[in-house]
Amino acid sequence: MRRVERYLWGFFPPSGQDDPVDEVLHAVLDAPGKRLRPQLLLLVSRLGADHAAKRERLCKLAAIVECIHTASLIHDDIVDDSPLRRGRPTIQSRFGKDMAVYTGDLVLSRVMTELFADGLSQSGLVLGQTMQTMCRGELWQYAGRYRVDVTPDRYRKAIYGKTVALLAAACRVGGLESGCTAPVLEAVEDYGTHLGYLFQIRDDLLDFLSEQDREGKPVHVDFQEGILTLPVIYALAHPDHRQAIERLVGIAAERPLTAEEQALLVQAVRLSGGLEKAIYELDQHYACACAALKALPDGKIAAVLRKIVKMLRDSLPNKRPTAKMVAG
Amino acid sequence: MRRVERYLWGFFPPSGQDDPVDEVLHAVLDAPGKRLRPQLLLLVSRLGADHAAKRERLCKLAAIVECIHTASLIHDDIVDDSPLRRGRPTIQSRFGKDMAVYTGDLVLSRVMTELFADGLSQSGLVLGQTMQTMCRGELWQYAGRYRVDVTPDRYRKAIYGKTVALLAAACRVGGLESGCTAPVLEAVEDYGTHLGYLFQIRDDLLDFLSEQDREGKPVHVDFQEGILTLPVIYALAHPDHRQAIERLVGIAAERPLTAEEQALLVQAVRLSGGLEKAIYELDQHYACACAALKALPDGKIAAVLRKIVKMLRDSLPNKRPTAKMVAG
Repeated sequence: MRRVERYLWGFFPPSGQDDPVDEVLHAVLDAPGKRLRPQLLLLVSRLGADHAAKRERLCKLAAIVECIHTASLIHDDIVDDSPLRRGRPTIQSRFGKDMAVYTGDLVLSRVMTELFADGLSQSGLVLGQTMQTMCRGELWQYAGRYRVDVTPDRYRKAIYGKTVALLAAACRVGGLESGCTAPVLEAVEDYGTHLGYLFQIRDDLLDFLSEQDREGKPVHVDFQEGILTLPVIYALAHPDHRQAIERLVGIAAERPLTAEEQALLVQAVRLSGGLEKAIYELDQHYACACAALKALPDGKIAAVLRKIVKMLRDSLPNKRPTAKMVAG
Repeated sequence: MRRVERYLWGFFPPSGQDDPVDEVLHAVLDAPGKRLRPQLLLLVSRLGADHAAKRERLCKLAAIVECIHTASLIHDDIVDDSPLRRGRPTIQSRFGKDMAVYTGDLVLSRVMTELFADGLSQSGLVLGQTMQTMCRGELWQYAGRYRVDVTPDRYRKAIYGKTVALLAAACRVGGLESGCTAPVLEAVEDYGTHLGYLFQIRDDLLDFLSEQDREGKPVHVDFQEGILTLPVIYALAHPDHRQAIERLVGIAAERPLTAEEQALLVQAVRLSGGLEKAIYELDQHYACACAALKALPDGKIAAVLRKIVKMLRDSLPNKRPTAKMVAG
């Protein structure tokens, strides 16, 4: 991973002159992150016969995938008007929306240049298609805000673009470039896809399961912005709770929800069984991700990949809602 | 050019389903434009030996270059908060800034996919680098707003990214893909570069030479946004006018200029000789563009390319400021 960091910083060397762009790029690279996507790419690549020979290429690709993720976060923060990301000011809040638009574009065009310069056209094609899917997912989600007719299928389509596609692509690219066989390639992409769904559903559940709101931190940001997540969508399908949630969606479109209204939202989602249904879906993705790993030839790598999804699943606080929680 | 249009629309086929993205993309493609960049690419390509054999590839590349231009306009309009572009509502004013961010990204990632899918890696590298230059130019310009220490060199650096780079790249790509010889390639890129400078300086001059303001249309938008163009920068260098312009820059940073203040700006720029100096620079680029064409083997193509820069130069209304204009 140290090599990956070196590539990341190497993509954007400071010009040395009095260049305002240097400061913005430094802030972009310096942002803390789990680097999940590059780690996944490198892990998967160890399943291919050429992984040792192509080590530099793979580290560079891992950095490129992280850049695509970073650029998407920069642009997402413009749309969400987010002041903070992982505890630090976002590019848009620190340098303005306008700088953020072009900084995201700069990171993407740098990625494109690197891919062409190194003749990484197979991975370039995968990543170009993935970026399209990501944009379409975001557009799709944005256009559907505050719509109470949103279905679980629409939700899945949106999060496929928002989260799943790039995680699956990281696995695919790692497998492709290291020379994995077709069945292994299919298995790792399948794993990445289910990991992606698990990852996003977990994130959406956390909004209702965590205790963050009691510490005054902003929660239900998605709901406020009209983005209805899986627990809410399932709650909307419950005849006893549909009306309450529809009313709250209408309010969210007009003004910030009060603490009391937020509590009503949480109660409706909990009482409707929306949490259990979303957790059930998350568990299904966990099972599918583990099943996909059975096709892998290397038991050690499979075990590490299994650990990642297990950790994500188990880190859900109070994963099974208690009777007390359901009672509000 | 009909083939180019077909490729443009073909890049974004409607999904047929109830997809909100279709409507946005239709608005993007339907925007009127001169299609200068694709025309330039195709014209230049006729200087290469392979131009007939690579016709389809060249038309596709012409469409790709237009897409890059379009995506940059969509993102520029977010930054400028522009309600209109060529008389039609901008994507950001019609669908919101947020849709505009992702729509621009979608167009760029589509471009990237096409380049990789067709193995256009040589042109892909040129275009990736050009996109980086464009972003850096915009960031550079944006970071320097309302700064009265801006020099003609800083201005040139900013407009190189904003306008020149893509016009030069259109020429380079047209030459590269059609198999032009190295001297021809150098000549057409040189031509494209000077055409680019001419194009932008002309645009900046028009803001002070045209009579639009008398019809109530917005002028001096750049100045209002703190972007100081060449005529203003030259006026700032004049000891008799520096103070007046500095004061107006300060006002523009705070609030919209009144009609009276706009008139003061125009007067200062005219009296300082800023217009003549900018026109002199424009003429130099015209001469350089024409000189570059002398290296071309095909007299007919050279003549058409010369006509383009001549038309741009001659279309400047009242190109030489009259005594009356200088007197305000």
